[in-house]
Amino acid sequence: MRRGSKQTPPDAAKLALNTATTREKWTLAQAIEGCARHGIRGIAPWRDQLKAMGVNRAARAVRAHGLVVTGLCRGGMFPASNVRERKRRITDNLRAIDQAYALGARCLVLVVGGLPPGSRDLAGAREQVAAGIAAILPHARDARIPLAIEPLHPMYAADRACINTLAQALDVCDALDAEKSGALGVVVDVYHVWWDPDLEAGIRRAGEKRLLAYHICDWLVPTADLLYDRGMMGDGVIDLPGIRSWLERAGYTGLHEVEIFSAAKWWKRDPDEVLRVCCKRHHRYC
Amino acid sequence: MRRGSKQTPPDAAKLALNTATTREKWTLAQAIEGCARHGIRGIAPWRDQLKAMGVNRAARAVRAHGLVVTGLCRGGMFPASNVRERKRRITDNLRAIDQAYALGARCLVLVVGGLPPGSRDLAGAREQVAAGIAAILPHARDARIPLAIEPLHPMYAADRACINTLAQALDVCDALDAEKSGALGVVVDVYHVWWDPDLEAGIRRAGEKRLLAYHICDWLVPTADLLYDRGMMGDGVIDLPGIRSWLERAGYTGLHEVEIFSAAKWWKRDPDEVLRVCCKRHHRYC
Repeated sequence: MRRGSKQTPPDAAKLALNTATTREKWTLAQAIEGCARHGIRGIAPWRDQLKAMGVNRAARAVRAHGLVVTGLCRGGMFPASNVRERKRRITDNLRAIDQAYALGARCLVLVVGGLPPGSRDLAGAREQVAAGIAAILPHARDARIPLAIEPLHPMYAADRACINTLAQALDVCDALDAEKSGALGVVVDVYHVWWDPDLEAGIRRAGEKRLLAYHICDWLVPTADLLYDRGMMGDGVIDLPGIRSWLERAGYTGLHEVEIFSAAKWWKRDPDEVLRVCCKRHHRYC
Repeated sequence: MRRGSKQTPPDAAKLALNTATTREKWTLAQAIEGCARHGIRGIAPWRDQLKAMGVNRAARAVRAHGLVVTGLCRGGMFPASNVRERKRRITDNLRAIDQAYALGARCLVLVVGGLPPGSRDLAGAREQVAAGIAAILPHARDARIPLAIEPLHPMYAADRACINTLAQALDVCDALDAEKSGALGVVVDVYHVWWDPDLEAGIRRAGEKRLLAYHICDWLVPTADLLYDRGMMGDGVIDLPGIRSWLERAGYTGLHEVEIFSAAKWWKRDPDEVLRVCCKRHHRYC
């Protein structure tokens, strides 16, 4: 009875692992080897684990295993209370672009940041985000690292990202890269956008050039925690085949990156088991 | 430093109490007396407490104290797995309209419902909602009880309400009451819509005829629970004076109804203290 859209199962070679899924048990080196072991062809590392492994060592390891780096997580976090802190964050984003370049990542994921401490000025924070992206875009163009704005679920508007819909992210793309050069685009993460009545239209509007990454997991009912209770594909209510069909119709040919924050369940399991389940669920529910 | 928009403080006579705020400690009879005691001129009861008190007794009590019933909570919950259950819910909504009429309520609040159990068909649920509202609208018109669609925060899309933005609610209004008769409109609850980049435009689009109720509280950072961790006005990040100014500019002259679900804090306090704090915070932060 848990019905969504019918579709042909996705190509198994499209599966990728965002290392947030295994971060409690595996280092980046282990995650890279794990992907290779399970036939998973793409990986998206986080910068804390990347730093621990060393960028060059990580770059060698992903190349040795022939993995695609679907994205580097993450840049962003632009809004701040004062100019000095804003500049510090720009500098950090420039460094992230360099790291993405060294890794050969397909994009740098931007979680844009929320309200500065003590602020209630949401429109102002959104202006700071656009200004921050504008400030780093030239360097990203030079490095040929596309910047991928990730609209986050509205429940994170205050503290993580004040860009909360695909339409809003695409408005920023239009403002800063009107020519659709491919230097600026979006991440479609089903967890953040599945509820949006304008999602299909937004994916169509983004088009191939701006659809830089596709993140999958599921929305659990009930959801016990705002941050760390994402579900494995098939355990929740998101119509994953339906959303995939919209992406494919818009020309997206990239990977399907599993990103599951799950303190109570998947983070506690053996990551080899988690990856086996990801492969099965990708085939069956995505 | 917790700055939002500057505005003249609101008229104290605009404050109203949604009894969800006091439901753990006070019956409806106590809440009615509490409002009268604290000079709060409006009240919005929930149907479980209304049933416990008896509709006629409640109607007499609110009239005796000269209170405005800003709305009855709640109708809605339209989507269901089968026709029989859908009909049962329509019947329940017709009964809610009659109760709202008996109370002299200014509107019946509709929390429209989410996905039926086992379903991932969000578009289908949304169609069921529109059909459900269409089915009860004639009776609401006869009773002169406006139906107020409450868009709920996207984090409730699966299990509580699949109408999640003001624009979406207004699209339903346009479809079912194109002439803007006043029979169908919206509730603007800041908790659900504060994050929406299109909020100001939506309030303007709604206009006086469709702005049927205004609910206030605050969004806490961090938010510990998806359901029961709403904040008292001033304790969170919502720019309440700013949102009020948009409503006033659109012609809204109704009350400001405090609705706080707060298991860990406000539900544990003496409701007389809660009402005192509401009055102060309304003046200072709304």
